[in-house]
Amino acid sequence: MVMHNSRLFLLDAGEGTQFQLQRYKIRIRNLDAVFISHLHGDHVFGLPGLLTSMSIYGRTDALTVVGPPGIRQYIEFQFKLSDTQLRFALHFTELPLPPRGQLAPAFENRWLSVSCFGLKHRIDCLGYRFDEKPKLPRLDAEKAGALGIPKEYYHLLKQGNTITLADGSVVHPHQVLGQPEPPYSYAYCTDTRYLPEVVTAVQGSSVLYHEATFLHQMLKRAEETGHSTAHQAGQLAQAAGVGHLLIGHFSARYPGLQPLLDEARAVFPHTSLAQEGRVFDIPYQATEHPTPVADFNLPPNLV
Amino acid sequence: MVMHNSRLFLLDAGEGTQFQLQRYKIRIRNLDAVFISHLHGDHVFGLPGLLTSMSIYGRTDALTVVGPPGIRQYIEFQFKLSDTQLRFALHFTELPLPPRGQLAPAFENRWLSVSCFGLKHRIDCLGYRFDEKPKLPRLDAEKAGALGIPKEYYHLLKQGNTITLADGSVVHPHQVLGQPEPPYSYAYCTDTRYLPEVVTAVQGSSVLYHEATFLHQMLKRAEETGHSTAHQAGQLAQAAGVGHLLIGHFSARYPGLQPLLDEARAVFPHTSLAQEGRVFDIPYQATEHPTPVADFNLPPNLV
Repeated sequence: MVMHNSRLFLLDAGEGTQFQLQRYKIRIRNLDAVFISHLHGDHVFGLPGLLTSMSIYGRTDALTVVGPPGIRQYIEFQFKLSDTQLRFALHFTELPLPPRGQLAPAFENRWLSVSCFGLKHRIDCLGYRFDEKPKLPRLDAEKAGALGIPKEYYHLLKQGNTITLADGSVVHPHQVLGQPEPPYSYAYCTDTRYLPEVVTAVQGSSVLYHEATFLHQMLKRAEETGHSTAHQAGQLAQAAGVGHLLIGHFSARYPGLQPLLDEARAVFPHTSLAQEGRVFDIPYQATEHPTPVADFNLPPNLV
Repeated sequence: MVMHNSRLFLLDAGEGTQFQLQRYKIRIRNLDAVFISHLHGDHVFGLPGLLTSMSIYGRTDALTVVGPPGIRQYIEFQFKLSDTQLRFALHFTELPLPPRGQLAPAFENRWLSVSCFGLKHRIDCLGYRFDEKPKLPRLDAEKAGALGIPKEYYHLLKQGNTITLADGSVVHPHQVLGQPEPPYSYAYCTDTRYLPEVVTAVQGSSVLYHEATFLHQMLKRAEETGHSTAHQAGQLAQAAGVGHLLIGHFSARYPGLQPLLDEARAVFPHTSLAQEGRVFDIPYQATEHPTPVADFNLPPNLV
């Protein structure tokens, strides 16, 4: 789940997603869009139930569902069979696979642009990249106070307007404005074999999530099943110059995840494990570690 | 879940069924058939994931899926979209709705016959009735021992054969056989409005499961939504002369279930709550209470 400006974006929806969202007390009414990477069950079997429950619990706001061709039919066919009518509108965006290494537009709102790019699992798969739109410059409140500018004018100045005060004095934006905050970005790659050309698509992202199903000693198995190793995830993060790497989608064969973390960190030190219930802030400095702001107490049966 | 002679039969498969089966350590490899009542999400959204996981975990034995028309397409369409091939065969039995109050064959194995009958929710819905096939008579081991009959002959006698012992003496079945155990039965009715004609379909069943979504004070709401009240479930059990009633499918509006139990018991005293994790033995005497043989320690978040 990505949260930005209090809006929520869900990335994939395996079976039980709605129960996990309840468990972590996520305010699902703030969900604006769902992004599906591919139509394998562990990424999509939870979507019909999530949509149905949102309707039962009273959602009326439209929801956007972004995914590969077939996602609309996948949902509509099931709802037709079960004679289900949602109380809110679903807007589908079906995305053909962009040429390798290229970005194509997937979604946008006032603050964010989301692009997609091509991955390769056993079937085609979509990666997503969230980019903040350029922000307004920061206003120096001390300077503005010294010039006697009322607060109601701050926003006009930030937008580049020259203003005239009640005493007739004129204030130009450059007198009170600093640099805007840099825009941050998040890229999401699962499920996929290691593809060097993905480097260009995720270049410079503040945080990169990349699957790391296997240790590198199982490279052959990774290639056969269309997955990546922790070493490869580290390599990609390194080559793309990202700020931080999150690895996930671990094979159930690994009872402990430290070896996977160690392997990725040997190539790219700024790596963390994307485990159930962990929350990461995208940092102000793209090279900083994201900080887990909350580790939930998971029920023992889920740890 | 119904267990008979170590074989398992799943009745409906809402989202998360595979996780619940894991939680209760149910040996899913013994699952012979799944019975779906209708295609609403809370009864079927867990089926694709359950089938996929069984395949991943190595199942090769064929599985029968019984349900309303559309169940085959529901599964096959999803597997086609996600390019999923199971490692075991699925045998589908699609059942048209029998005329009200009538039974139609749905499934059988060596020990059981399963029939279906018509229910009426917001859409058509199937009820199921499991009947044991007639059993072999019981053999009185004391009498058999006194006659010097070797144990290897017991089965021949049970099957009605007359045998000659090594000393030339002849034993007829009636000398050692008593009455067979009566065949037991289990009937399952969800989701449905109250239908008096269902009495004939569930007549005399050892245990009847019937939904009881609402208290009777919400009868109007029950009728509008195609559900039953606890009072109505009790009425049906009483009229059908069943051995025991299990009520379930309670509306989330009831924080405690005792009022629902009390209401059903006021009409039909031999009633229990079908709650997550409870296990009931079908009794030797059809009029006895089923005994919960195990109450699992449910994780607090599920209670």
